Amino acid sequence: MFQQLISTLLLLLFCSALFTSTPAVAGQGRALKKYVRFQAGTTIAHGIVEGDRVRQIKGDLFGAYEATNTTYPLESLKLLAPVKPTQVIAMAGNYRSHLAGEEISAKFKIPQAFFKSASCVIGTGENIVIPRDAEDVHFEGELVIVIGREARDVPEEQALDYVFGVTCGNDVSERKWQKSDVQWWRAKGSDTFGPIGPVIVSGINYDDLQLTLRANGEVKQQQRTSDLIHSVPATVSFISRYVTLHQGDLIFTGTPGTTSAIKPGDTIEVEIEGVGTLTNGVVAEK
Amino acid sequence: MFQQLISTLLLLLFCSALFTSTPAVAGQGRALKKYVRFQAGTTIAHGIVEGDRVRQIKGDLFGAYEATNTTYPLESLKLLAPVKPTQVIAMAGNYRSHLAGEEISAKFKIPQAFFKSASCVIGTGENIVIPRDAEDVHFEGELVIVIGREARDVPEEQALDYVFGVTCGNDVSERKWQKSDVQWWRAKGSDTFGPIGPVIVSGINYDDLQLTLRANGEVKQQQRTSDLIHSVPATVSFISRYVTLHQGDLIFTGTPGTTSAIKPGDTIEVEIEGVGTLTNGVVAEK
Repeated sequence: MFQQLISTLLLLLFCSALFTSTPAVAGQGRALKKYVRFQAGTTIAHGIVEGDRVRQIKGDLFGAYEATNTTYPLESLKLLAPVKPTQVIAMAGNYRSHLAGEEISAKFKIPQAFFKSASCVIGTGENIVIPRDAEDVHFEGELVIVIGREARDVPEEQALDYVFGVTCGNDVSERKWQKSDVQWWRAKGSDTFGPIGPVIVSGINYDDLQLTLRANGEVKQQQRTSDLIHSVPATVSFISRYVTLHQGDLIFTGTPGTTSAIKPGDTIEVEIEGVGTLTNGVVAEK
Repeated sequence: MFQQLISTLLLLLFCSALFTSTPAVAGQGRALKKYVRFQAGTTIAHGIVEGDRVRQIKGDLFGAYEATNTTYPLESLKLLAPVKPTQVIAMAGNYRSHLAGEEISAKFKIPQAFFKSASCVIGTGENIVIPRDAEDVHFEGELVIVIGREARDVPEEQALDYVFGVTCGNDVSERKWQKSDVQWWRAKGSDTFGPIGPVIVSGINYDDLQLTLRANGEVKQQQRTSDLIHSVPATVSFISRYVTLHQGDLIFTGTPGTTSAIKPGDTIEVEIEGVGTLTNGVVAEK
Protein backbone atom coordinates (compact mmCIF):
# COMPACT_ATOMS: atom_id res chain seq x y z
CA MET A 1 0.00 0.00 0.00
CA PHE A 2 2.77 2.42 1.05
CA GLN A 3 4.81 1.35 -2.02
CA GLN A 4 1.83 2.02 -4.28
CA LEU A 5 1.45 5.52 -2.79
CA ILE A 6 5.15 6.25 -3.38
CA SER A 7 4.92 4.99 -7.00
CA THR A 8 1.85 7.12 -7.66
CA LEU A 9 3.52 10.21 -6.17
CA LEU A 10 6.66 9.65 -8.27
CA LEU A 11 4.55 9.18 -11.38
CA LEU A 12 2.64 12.39 -10.67
CA LEU A 13 5.92 14.26 -10.12
CA PHE A 14 7.29 12.89 -13.37
CA CYS A 15 4.18 13.83 -15.33
CA SER A 16 4.03 17.33 -13.90
CA ALA A 17 7.72 17.80 -14.81
CA LEU A 18 6.90 16.67 -18.35
CA PHE A 19 4.11 19.16 -18.76
CA THR A 20 5.55 22.23 -17.04
CA SER A 21 9.19 22.16 -18.11
CA THR A 22 10.05 24.64 -20.84
CA PRO A 23 13.13 23.53 -22.77
CA ALA A 24 15.76 26.19 -23.39
CA VAL A 25 15.25 27.42 -26.95
CA ALA A 26 17.45 30.09 -28.44
CA GLY A 27 15.39 32.97 -29.79
CA GLN A 28 12.23 30.88 -29.87
CA GLY A 29 10.06 33.09 -27.71
CA ARG A 30 7.04 30.78 -27.94
CA ALA A 31 5.59 28.69 -25.13
CA LEU A 32 5.70 24.91 -25.52
CA LYS A 33 2.24 24.10 -26.88
CA LYS A 34 0.67 21.39 -29.00
CA TYR A 35 -2.16 22.30 -31.34
CA VAL A 36 -4.54 20.08 -33.28
CA ARG A 37 -7.43 20.62 -35.67
CA PHE A 38 -10.24 18.18 -35.06
CA GLN A 39 -13.75 17.14 -35.85
CA ALA A 40 -16.15 16.25 -33.03
CA GLY A 41 -19.66 15.60 -34.36
CA THR A 42 -20.37 18.56 -36.60
CA THR A 43 -17.80 20.80 -34.90
CA ILE A 44 -14.52 21.47 -36.72
CA ALA A 45 -12.10 23.51 -34.61
CA HIS A 46 -8.55 23.95 -33.43
CA GLY A 47 -7.63 22.84 -29.93
CA ILE A 48 -4.71 22.74 -27.49
CA VAL A 49 -3.55 19.33 -26.28
CA GLU A 50 -3.56 19.13 -22.46
CA GLY A 51 -2.34 15.66 -21.50
CA ASP A 52 -4.94 13.22 -22.81
CA ARG A 53 -7.55 15.91 -23.44
CA VAL A 54 -7.98 18.65 -26.04
CA ARG A 55 -9.25 22.12 -25.12
CA GLN A 56 -11.20 23.76 -27.94
CA ILE A 57 -10.14 27.29 -28.87
CA LYS A 58 -12.23 30.08 -30.36
CA GLY A 59 -10.86 32.59 -32.83
CA ASP A 60 -7.81 32.70 -35.04
CA LEU A 61 -5.14 30.08 -34.27
CA PHE A 62 -2.43 32.44 -35.53
CA GLY A 63 -3.78 35.60 -33.95
CA ALA A 64 -6.22 36.31 -31.15
CA TYR A 65 -7.90 33.23 -29.80
CA GLU A 66 -9.32 32.23 -26.46
CA ALA A 67 -9.28 28.87 -24.77
CA THR A 68 -12.88 27.72 -24.17
CA ASN A 69 -14.24 25.56 -21.35
CA THR A 70 -14.98 22.76 -23.82
CA THR A 71 -12.58 19.82 -23.65
CA TYR A 72 -12.65 16.41 -25.32
CA PRO A 73 -10.74 13.19 -24.69
CA LEU A 74 -7.96 13.22 -27.33
CA GLU A 75 -8.75 9.57 -28.13
CA SER A 76 -12.33 10.43 -29.08
CA LEU A 77 -11.46 13.00 -31.75
CA LYS A 78 -11.02 12.64 -35.47
CA LEU A 79 -7.82 14.64 -36.05
CA LEU A 80 -7.58 16.64 -39.28
CA ALA A 81 -4.61 18.14 -41.10
CA PRO A 82 -3.67 20.79 -38.51
CA VAL A 83 -3.76 23.67 -41.02
CA LYS A 84 -5.19 24.40 -44.48
CA PRO A 85 -2.25 26.09 -46.17
CA THR A 86 -2.32 28.30 -49.24
CA GLN A 87 1.28 27.67 -50.19
CA VAL A 88 3.14 24.42 -49.67
CA ILE A 89 6.87 24.73 -50.28
CA ALA A 90 9.39 21.94 -49.91
CA MET A 91 13.17 21.59 -49.91
CA ALA A 92 15.26 19.37 -52.17
CA GLY A 93 18.61 17.92 -51.10
CA ASN A 94 18.65 19.45 -47.62
CA TYR A 95 20.35 16.59 -45.74
CA ARG A 96 23.94 15.55 -46.52
CA SER A 97 22.78 11.93 -46.20
CA HIS A 98 20.24 12.39 -49.04
CA LEU A 99 22.90 13.66 -51.47
CA ALA A 100 24.23 10.10 -51.98
CA GLY A 101 27.57 10.79 -50.28
CA GLU A 102 28.47 13.60 -52.68
CA GLU A 103 30.08 16.77 -51.42
CA ILE A 104 27.54 19.56 -51.14
CA SER A 105 27.71 21.07 -54.63
CA ALA A 106 27.41 24.78 -55.27
CA LYS A 107 23.80 24.09 -56.25
CA PHE A 108 22.84 22.81 -52.80
CA LYS A 109 24.83 25.42 -50.90
CA ILE A 110 21.80 27.65 -51.51
CA PRO A 111 18.41 26.34 -50.33
CA GLN A 112 16.72 24.51 -53.24
CA ALA A 113 12.97 24.85 -52.94
CA PHE A 114 9.99 23.66 -54.97
CA PHE A 115 6.23 23.95 -54.72
CA LYS A 116 3.86 21.18 -53.74
CA SER A 117 0.13 21.86 -54.17
CA ALA A 118 -2.40 22.93 -51.55
CA SER A 119 -4.53 20.02 -52.82
CA CYS A 120 -1.98 17.39 -51.73
CA VAL A 121 -2.40 18.03 -48.00
CA ILE A 122 -4.08 15.30 -45.91
CA GLY A 123 -4.12 14.57 -42.18
CA THR A 124 -3.10 11.64 -40.03
CA GLY A 125 -5.25 8.54 -40.54
CA GLU A 126 -6.07 9.47 -44.13
CA ASN A 127 -4.86 7.35 -47.01
CA ILE A 128 -2.13 8.16 -49.48
CA VAL A 129 -3.71 7.34 -52.85
CA ILE A 130 -1.42 5.95 -55.57
CA PRO A 131 -2.59 7.47 -58.88
CA ARG A 132 -3.71 4.93 -61.55
CA ASP A 133 -0.75 5.59 -63.83
CA ALA A 134 1.91 6.01 -61.12
CA GLU A 135 4.72 3.45 -61.15
CA ASP A 136 7.20 4.31 -58.42
CA VAL A 137 5.80 6.26 -55.44
CA HIS A 138 8.23 6.82 -52.53
CA PHE A 139 7.91 8.05 -48.93
CA GLU A 140 9.97 10.99 -47.67
CA GLY A 141 9.77 11.62 -43.91
CA GLU A 142 10.23 15.31 -43.10
CA LEU A 143 10.03 18.03 -40.48
CA VAL A 144 7.46 20.60 -41.65
CA ILE A 145 7.52 24.29 -40.69
CA VAL A 146 4.18 26.08 -40.12
CA ILE A 147 4.35 29.83 -40.77
CA GLY A 148 2.65 32.01 -38.13
CA ARG A 149 2.65 35.45 -39.71
CA GLU A 150 3.34 37.13 -43.02
CA ALA A 151 7.03 36.86 -43.78
CA ARG A 152 8.60 39.04 -46.49
CA ASP A 153 12.40 39.35 -46.76
CA VAL A 154 12.99 38.30 -43.16
CA PRO A 155 16.60 38.21 -41.84
CA GLU A 156 17.75 34.81 -40.56
CA GLU A 157 18.13 36.14 -36.99
CA GLN A 158 14.44 37.10 -36.89
CA ALA A 159 13.06 34.19 -38.89
CA LEU A 160 11.90 32.14 -35.89
CA ASP A 161 9.48 34.95 -34.98
CA TYR A 162 7.57 34.04 -38.14
CA VAL A 163 7.46 30.30 -37.38
CA PHE A 164 4.32 29.18 -35.55
CA GLY A 165 5.61 25.66 -34.94
CA VAL A 166 6.46 22.39 -36.64
CA THR A 167 4.68 19.19 -37.54
CA CYS A 168 5.52 15.84 -39.14
CA GLY A 169 5.21 15.45 -42.89
CA ASN A 170 5.62 12.97 -45.70
CA ASP A 171 6.74 14.49 -49.01
CA VAL A 172 5.30 11.64 -51.11
CA SER A 173 7.06 11.53 -54.51
CA GLU A 174 6.54 9.69 -57.81
CA ARG A 175 10.10 9.03 -59.00
CA LYS A 176 9.30 8.30 -62.65
CA TRP A 177 7.40 11.58 -63.13
CA GLN A 178 10.11 13.36 -61.16
CA LYS A 179 12.55 12.33 -63.91
CA SER A 180 10.34 12.42 -67.02
CA ASP A 181 8.28 15.59 -66.50
CA VAL A 182 9.67 19.08 -67.13
CA GLN A 183 8.86 20.00 -63.50
CA TRP A 184 7.82 18.06 -60.37
CA TRP A 185 4.21 19.27 -60.21
CA ARG A 186 2.45 15.86 -60.21
CA ALA A 187 5.52 13.95 -58.93
CA LYS A 188 5.25 15.95 -55.69
CA GLY A 189 1.85 17.69 -55.84
CA SER A 190 -0.69 14.98 -56.68
CA ASP A 191 -3.68 14.76 -54.34
CA THR A 192 -2.80 13.08 -50.99
CA PHE A 193 0.98 13.45 -51.61
CA GLY A 194 1.37 15.81 -48.62
CA PRO A 195 0.35 14.13 -45.32
CA ILE A 196 0.96 16.39 -42.29
CA GLY A 197 0.18 16.22 -38.57
CA PRO A 198 -1.15 15.16 -36.21
CA VAL A 199 -0.07 18.16 -34.08
CA ILE A 200 1.74 21.45 -34.50
CA VAL A 201 4.25 21.96 -31.71
CA SER A 202 5.68 25.37 -30.82
CA GLY A 203 8.45 26.23 -28.38
CA ILE A 204 10.85 23.34 -28.95
CA ASN A 205 14.26 23.50 -30.60
CA TYR A 206 13.25 22.69 -34.19
CA ASP A 207 16.85 22.24 -35.26
CA ASP A 208 17.68 19.29 -33.01
CA LEU A 209 14.93 16.67 -33.16
CA GLN A 210 15.12 12.99 -34.02
CA LEU A 211 13.14 12.13 -37.18
CA THR A 212 12.14 8.50 -37.83
CA LEU A 213 10.15 7.01 -40.70
CA ARG A 214 8.75 3.50 -40.40
CA ALA A 215 7.12 1.47 -43.18
CA ASN A 216 4.97 -1.31 -41.74
CA GLY A 217 6.80 -0.94 -38.42
CA GLU A 218 10.29 -1.15 -39.89
CA VAL A 219 12.61 1.85 -39.50
CA LYS A 220 13.54 3.16 -42.98
CA GLN A 221 14.82 6.66 -42.23
CA GLN A 222 16.31 8.05 -39.02
CA GLN A 223 18.27 11.24 -38.55
CA ARG A 224 18.37 14.36 -36.38
CA THR A 225 17.23 17.70 -37.81
CA SER A 226 20.62 19.06 -36.66
CA ASP A 227 21.92 17.39 -39.85
CA LEU A 228 19.87 19.72 -42.05
CA ILE A 229 22.16 21.61 -44.45
CA HIS A 230 19.95 24.71 -44.18
CA SER A 231 18.41 25.19 -40.73
CA VAL A 232 14.78 26.16 -40.08
CA PRO A 233 15.54 29.91 -39.77
CA ALA A 234 17.93 29.89 -42.76
CA THR A 235 15.26 28.22 -44.90
CA VAL A 236 12.45 30.58 -43.89
CA SER A 237 14.69 33.61 -44.42
CA PHE A 238 15.86 32.54 -47.88
CA ILE A 239 12.41 31.65 -49.22
CA SER A 240 10.91 34.88 -47.86
CA ARG A 241 13.40 36.90 -49.94
CA TYR A 242 11.49 35.82 -53.05
CA VAL A 243 8.06 34.50 -52.04
CA THR A 244 6.03 36.17 -49.29
CA LEU A 245 4.89 33.53 -46.80
CA HIS A 246 1.46 33.68 -45.21
CA GLN A 247 -0.16 32.34 -42.03
CA GLY A 248 -0.53 28.60 -42.26
CA ASP A 249 1.85 28.16 -45.20
CA LEU A 250 4.02 25.06 -44.93
CA ILE A 251 7.67 24.37 -45.65
CA PHE A 252 8.68 20.70 -45.88
CA THR A 253 12.37 20.85 -44.90
CA GLY A 254 13.71 17.88 -46.90
CA THR A 255 14.26 14.20 -46.27
CA PRO A 256 17.33 12.35 -44.91
CA GLY A 257 19.03 9.23 -46.24
CA THR A 258 17.37 7.02 -48.82
CA THR A 259 13.72 6.39 -49.62
CA SER A 260 11.87 3.44 -51.08
CA ALA A 261 8.62 2.58 -52.81
CA ILE A 262 5.26 2.33 -51.05
CA LYS A 263 2.39 0.11 -52.17
CA PRO A 264 -1.28 -0.38 -51.40
CA GLY A 265 -1.72 -1.93 -47.96
CA ASP A 266 1.37 -0.26 -46.44
CA THR A 267 1.27 1.83 -43.26
CA ILE A 268 3.76 4.71 -43.17
CA GLU A 269 4.63 6.48 -39.92
CA VAL A 270 6.68 9.66 -39.54
CA GLU A 271 7.68 10.26 -35.92
CA ILE A 272 9.45 13.38 -34.72
CA GLU A 273 10.81 13.63 -31.18
CA GLY A 274 8.67 15.95 -29.06
CA VAL A 275 6.12 16.34 -31.85
CA GLY A 276 4.28 13.05 -32.41
CA THR A 277 3.59 10.43 -35.04
CA LEU A 278 1.89 10.91 -38.39
CA THR A 279 0.32 7.67 -39.64
CA ASN A 280 -1.07 7.06 -43.12
CA GLY A 281 -2.27 4.01 -44.98
CA VAL A 282 -1.65 3.52 -48.69
CA VAL A 283 -4.34 2.60 -51.22
CA ALA A 284 -4.59 2.38 -55.00
CA GLU A 285 -6.73 4.89 -56.90
CA LYS A 286 -10.03 3.32 -57.94
CA MET B 1 -28.27 66.53 -90.45
CA PHE B 2 -29.92 63.50 -92.09
CA GLN B 3 -26.48 61.95 -92.65
CA GLN B 4 -25.64 62.47 -88.97
CA LEU B 5 -28.84 60.72 -87.90
CA ILE B 6 -28.08 57.75 -90.18
CA SER B 7 -24.53 57.54 -88.84
CA THR B 8 -25.78 57.61 -85.24
CA LEU B 9 -28.40 54.95 -85.95
CA LEU B 10 -25.82 52.70 -87.61
CA LEU B 11 -23.44 53.20 -84.68
CA LEU B 12 -26.20 52.33 -82.19
CA LEU B 13 -27.09 49.22 -84.20
CA PHE B 14 -23.44 48.17 -84.30
CA CYS B 15 -22.97 48.72 -80.55
CA SER B 16 -26.13 46.85 -79.64
CA ALA B 17 -24.98 43.94 -81.83
CA LEU B 18 -21.64 43.99 -80.02
CA PHE B 19 -23.23 43.75 -76.61
CA THR B 20 -26.10 41.37 -77.25
CA SER B 21 -24.59 38.83 -79.61
CA THR B 22 -23.58 35.56 -77.98
CA PRO B 23 -20.83 33.95 -80.00
CA ALA B 24 -21.33 30.29 -80.79
CA VAL B 25 -19.27 28.39 -78.24
CA ALA B 26 -19.25 24.62 -78.20
CA GLY B 27 -20.19 23.29 -74.76
CA GLN B 28 -19.54 26.63 -73.11
CA GLY B 29 -22.93 27.10 -71.51
CA ARG B 30 -22.00 30.42 -69.92
CA ALA B 31 -23.33 33.84 -70.80
CA LEU B 32 -20.88 36.40 -72.18
CA LYS B 33 -19.94 38.42 -69.10
CA LYS B 34 -16.99 40.49 -67.92
CA TYR B 35 -16.11 40.51 -64.23
CA VAL B 36 -13.72 42.72 -62.31
CA ARG B 37 -12.62 43.03 -58.69
CA PHE B 38 -12.22 46.62 -57.62
CA GLN B 39 -11.64 49.05 -54.83
CA ALA B 40 -13.84 52.12 -54.49
CA GLY B 41 -13.04 54.05 -51.32
CA THR B 42 -12.99 51.41 -48.57
CA THR B 43 -15.18 48.99 -50.57
CA ILE B 44 -13.50 45.96 -52.15
CA ALA B 45 -15.92 43.92 -54.27
CA HIS B 46 -16.50 42.07 -57.51
CA GLY B 47 -18.53 43.71 -60.23
CA ILE B 48 -19.91 43.10 -63.71
CA VAL B 49 -18.78 45.41 -66.50
CA GLU B 50 -21.78 47.03 -68.27
CA GLY B 51 -20.39 49.26 -71.03
CA ASP B 52 -18.41 51.99 -69.29
CA ARG B 53 -19.90 51.24 -65.85
CA VAL B 54 -19.40 48.47 -63.28
CA ARG B 55 -22.32 46.99 -61.34
CA GLN B 56 -21.29 45.80 -57.88
CA ILE B 57 -22.33 42.26 -56.97
CA LYS B 58 -23.07 40.82 -53.53
CA GLY B 59 -22.22 37.25 -52.59
CA ASP B 60 -19.95 34.61 -54.02
CA LEU B 61 -18.62 35.33 -57.53
CA PHE B 62 -18.43 31.60 -58.23
CA GLY B 63 -21.73 30.66 -56.65
CA ALA B 64 -24.83 32.57 -55.66
CA TYR B 65 -24.50 36.31 -56.08
CA GLU B 66 -26.92 39.11 -56.81
CA ALA B 67 -26.39 42.21 -58.87
CA THR B 68 -26.87 45.29 -56.67
CA ASN B 69 -28.19 48.73 -57.64
CA THR B 70 -24.75 50.24 -57.04
CA THR B 71 -22.79 51.12 -60.18
CA TYR B 72 -19.54 53.04 -60.70
CA PRO B 73 -17.91 54.56 -63.76
CA LEU B 74 -15.29 51.96 -64.83
CA GLU B 75 -12.74 54.76 -65.24
CA SER B 76 -13.09 55.78 -61.58
CA LEU B 77 -12.23 52.37 -60.10
CA LYS B 78 -8.94 50.95 -58.96
CA LEU B 79 -9.02 47.48 -60.52
CA LEU B 80 -7.48 44.64 -58.48
CA ALA B 81 -6.31 41.17 -59.51
CA PRO B 82 -9.73 39.69 -60.40
CA VAL B 83 -9.32 36.67 -58.09
CA LYS B 84 -7.20 35.61 -55.13
CA PRO B 85 -6.24 32.06 -56.11
CA THR B 86 -5.00 29.31 -53.83
CA GLN B 87 -3.25 27.39 -56.58
CA VAL B 88 -1.51 28.94 -59.57
CA ILE B 89 -0.54 26.39 -62.19
CA ALA B 90 1.18 27.15 -65.47
CA MET B 91 2.05 25.30 -68.66
CA ALA B 92 5.49 24.88 -70.21
CA GLY B 93 6.03 24.49 -73.96
CA ASN B 94 2.37 24.70 -74.94
CA TYR B 95 2.73 26.57 -78.26
CA ARG B 96 4.57 25.02 -81.21
CA SER B 97 6.15 28.44 -81.80
CA HIS B 98 7.72 28.42 -78.31
CA LEU B 99 9.45 25.07 -78.92
CA ALA B 100 12.08 26.72 -81.15
CA GLY B 101 10.91 24.99 -84.33
CA GLU B 102 11.45 21.51 -82.92
CA GLU B 103 8.94 18.77 -83.54
CA ILE B 104 6.70 18.26 -80.52
CA SER B 105 8.73 15.73 -78.55
CA ALA B 106 7.12 12.91 -76.58
CA LYS B 107 7.66 15.07 -73.49
CA PHE B 108 5.43 17.88 -74.75
CA LYS B 109 2.78 15.57 -76.17
CA ILE B 110 1.49 15.42 -72.62
CA PRO B 111 0.66 18.73 -70.91
CA GLN B 112 3.74 19.88 -68.94
CA ALA B 113 2.65 21.85 -65.91
CA PHE B 114 4.42 23.61 -63.04
CA PHE B 115 3.39 25.60 -59.99
CA LYS B 116 3.71 29.34 -59.59
CA SER B 117 3.03 30.77 -56.11
CA ALA B 118 -0.14 32.41 -54.81
CA SER B 119 2.14 35.24 -53.65
CA CYS B 120 3.18 36.16 -57.20
CA VAL B 121 -0.29 37.36 -58.27
CA ILE B 122 -0.74 41.10 -58.88
CA GLY B 123 -3.35 43.10 -60.79
CA THR B 124 -3.27 45.51 -63.70
CA GLY B 125 -1.52 48.78 -62.93
CA GLU B 126 0.72 47.18 -60.31
CA ASN B 127 4.46 46.97 -60.83
CA ILE B 128 6.50 43.88 -61.64
CA VAL B 129 9.40 44.08 -59.17
CA ILE B 130 12.78 42.77 -60.36
CA PRO B 131 14.39 41.04 -57.35
CA ARG B 132 17.78 42.50 -56.23
CA ASP B 133 19.78 39.48 -57.36
CA ALA B 134 17.83 38.72 -60.57
CA GLU B 135 19.78 39.02 -63.81
CA ASP B 136 17.53 38.06 -66.72
CA VAL B 137 13.80 38.54 -66.16
CA HIS B 138 11.55 37.90 -69.18
CA PHE B 139 7.90 38.57 -70.06
CA GLU B 140 5.60 35.73 -71.15
CA GLY B 141 2.18 36.83 -72.40
CA GLU B 142 -0.47 34.16 -71.72
CA LEU B 143 -4.15 33.30 -71.68
CA VAL B 144 -5.09 32.39 -68.09
CA ILE B 145 -7.93 30.01 -67.15
CA VAL B 146 -9.98 30.80 -64.01
CA ILE B 147 -11.52 27.70 -62.41
CA GLY B 148 -15.18 28.07 -61.37
CA ARG B 149 -15.83 24.93 -59.34
CA GLU B 150 -13.97 22.05 -57.78
CA ALA B 151 -12.55 19.87 -60.54
CA ARG B 152 -11.29 16.36 -59.78
CA ASP B 153 -10.57 13.92 -62.61
CA VAL B 154 -12.80 15.72 -65.10
CA PRO B 155 -13.17 14.30 -68.63
CA GLU B 156 -12.11 16.64 -71.42
CA GLU B 157 -15.67 16.81 -72.81
CA GLN B 158 -16.94 18.21 -69.50
CA ALA B 159 -13.93 20.35 -68.61
CA LEU B 160 -15.43 23.67 -69.80
CA ASP B 161 -18.17 23.30 -67.17
CA TYR B 162 -15.44 23.84 -64.57
CA VAL B 163 -13.99 26.92 -66.25
CA PHE B 164 -15.40 30.20 -64.95
CA GLY B 165 -13.68 32.29 -67.61
CA VAL B 166 -10.33 33.57 -68.82
CA THR B 167 -8.12 36.57 -68.21
CA CYS B 168 -4.81 37.96 -69.46
CA GLY B 169 -1.60 36.96 -67.69
CA ASN B 170 2.13 37.48 -67.74
CA ASP B 171 4.16 34.46 -66.59
CA VAL B 172 7.18 36.54 -65.58
CA SER B 173 10.32 34.33 -65.54
CA GLU B 174 13.92 34.70 -64.36
CA ARG B 175 15.87 32.73 -66.97
CA LYS B 176 19.11 32.33 -64.99
CA TRP B 177 17.31 30.79 -61.97
CA GLN B 178 15.20 28.74 -64.35
CA LYS B 179 18.44 27.07 -65.50
CA SER B 180 20.52 27.04 -62.31
CA ASP B 181 17.95 26.05 -59.64
CA VAL B 182 16.74 22.48 -59.16
CA GLN B 183 13.17 23.65 -59.75
CA TRP B 184 11.55 26.86 -61.03
CA TRP B 185 10.09 28.06 -57.73
CA ARG B 186 11.67 31.56 -57.62
CA ALA B 187 12.27 31.72 -61.40
CA LYS B 188 8.47 31.65 -61.85
CA GLY B 189 7.01 32.20 -58.35
CA SER B 190 8.76 35.30 -56.98
CA ASP B 191 6.45 38.04 -55.68
CA THR B 192 4.84 40.07 -58.53
CA PHE B 193 5.80 37.45 -61.18
CA GLY B 194 2.12 36.65 -61.90
CA PRO B 195 0.22 39.71 -63.18
CA ILE B 196 -3.38 38.90 -64.16
CA GLY B 197 -6.44 40.88 -65.26
CA PRO B 198 -7.98 43.31 -65.64
CA VAL B 199 -11.20 41.32 -66.30
CA ILE B 200 -12.38 37.73 -66.31
CA VAL B 201 -14.49 37.02 -69.39
CA SER B 202 -16.86 34.07 -69.62
CA GLY B 203 -18.80 32.81 -72.60
CA ILE B 204 -16.31 33.37 -75.42
CA ASN B 205 -14.44 30.70 -77.39
CA TYR B 206 -11.29 30.49 -75.28
CA ASP B 207 -9.52 28.39 -77.90
CA ASP B 208 -9.54 30.95 -80.71
CA LEU B 209 -8.45 34.35 -79.42
CA GLN B 210 -5.65 36.64 -80.60
CA LEU B 211 -2.97 37.16 -77.93
CA THR B 212 -0.59 40.12 -78.22
CA LEU B 213 2.21 41.24 -75.92
CA ARG B 214 3.68 44.72 -76.26
CA ALA B 215 6.77 46.05 -74.50
CA ASN B 216 6.80 49.85 -74.46
CA GLY B 217 4.22 49.82 -77.25
CA GLU B 218 6.15 47.46 -79.54
CA VAL B 219 4.55 44.11 -80.42
CA LYS B 220 6.81 41.29 -79.14
CA GLN B 221 4.47 38.29 -79.16
CA GLN B 222 1.37 37.67 -81.26
CA GLN B 223 -0.45 34.41 -81.82
CA ARG B 224 -3.93 32.91 -81.68
CA THR B 225 -4.84 30.53 -78.84
CA SER B 226 -5.92 28.10 -81.58
CA ASP B 227 -2.19 27.36 -81.83
CA LEU B 228 -2.09 25.95 -78.30
CA ILE B 229 -0.80 22.37 -78.36
CA HIS B 230 -3.14 21.41 -75.50
CA SER B 231 -6.47 23.26 -75.60
CA VAL B 232 -8.18 24.82 -72.58
CA PRO B 233 -10.39 21.76 -71.89
CA ALA B 234 -7.53 19.29 -72.49
CA THR B 235 -5.34 21.18 -70.03
CA VAL B 236 -7.98 21.42 -67.29
CA SER B 237 -8.85 17.74 -67.71
CA PHE B 238 -5.24 16.55 -67.53
CA ILE B 239 -4.28 18.60 -64.49
CA SER B 240 -7.45 17.59 -62.64
CA ARG B 241 -6.46 13.92 -62.95
CA TYR B 242 -3.67 14.59 -60.45
CA VAL B 243 -4.35 17.85 -58.63
CA THR B 244 -7.87 18.83 -57.54
CA LEU B 245 -8.62 22.36 -58.75
CA HIS B 246 -10.62 24.79 -56.63
CA GLN B 247 -12.72 27.90 -57.26
CA GLY B 248 -10.50 30.77 -58.28
CA ASP B 249 -7.46 28.62 -59.06
CA LEU B 250 -5.55 29.79 -62.13
CA ILE B 251 -3.94 27.97 -65.04
CA PHE B 252 -1.52 30.01 -67.17
CA THR B 253 -1.74 28.23 -70.53
CA GLY B 254 1.78 28.88 -71.86
CA THR B 255 3.44 31.52 -74.01
CA PRO B 256 3.89 31.67 -77.81
CA GLY B 257 7.02 32.51 -79.78
CA THR B 258 10.06 34.06 -78.15
CA THR B 259 10.40 36.26 -75.09
CA SER B 260 12.92 38.91 -74.08
CA ALA B 261 14.23 40.68 -71.00
CA ILE B 262 12.33 43.42 -69.16
CA LYS B 263 13.97 46.23 -67.21
CA PRO B 264 12.97 48.96 -64.76
CA GLY B 265 10.97 51.64 -66.53
CA ASP B 266 9.37 49.28 -69.05
CA THR B 267 5.62 49.03 -69.58
CA ILE B 268 4.36 45.57 -70.53
CA GLU B 269 0.88 45.02 -71.99
CA VAL B 270 -0.83 41.68 -72.60
CA GLU B 271 -3.92 42.07 -74.79
CA ILE B 272 -6.32 39.26 -75.56
CA GLU B 273 -9.08 39.67 -78.14
CA GLY B 274 -12.45 39.98 -76.45
CA VAL B 275 -10.88 40.06 -73.01
CA GLY B 276 -8.91 43.27 -72.53
CA THR B 277 -5.43 44.57 -71.81
CA LEU B 278 -3.30 43.88 -68.75
CA THR B 279 -0.76 46.66 -68.17
CA ASN B 280 2.14 46.54 -65.72
CA GLY B 281 5.15 48.75 -65.10
CA VAL B 282 8.53 47.31 -64.16
CA VAL B 283 10.61 48.53 -61.20
CA ALA B 284 13.77 47.36 -59.41
CA GLU B 285 13.51 45.99 -55.86
CA LYS B 286 14.67 48.59 -53.34
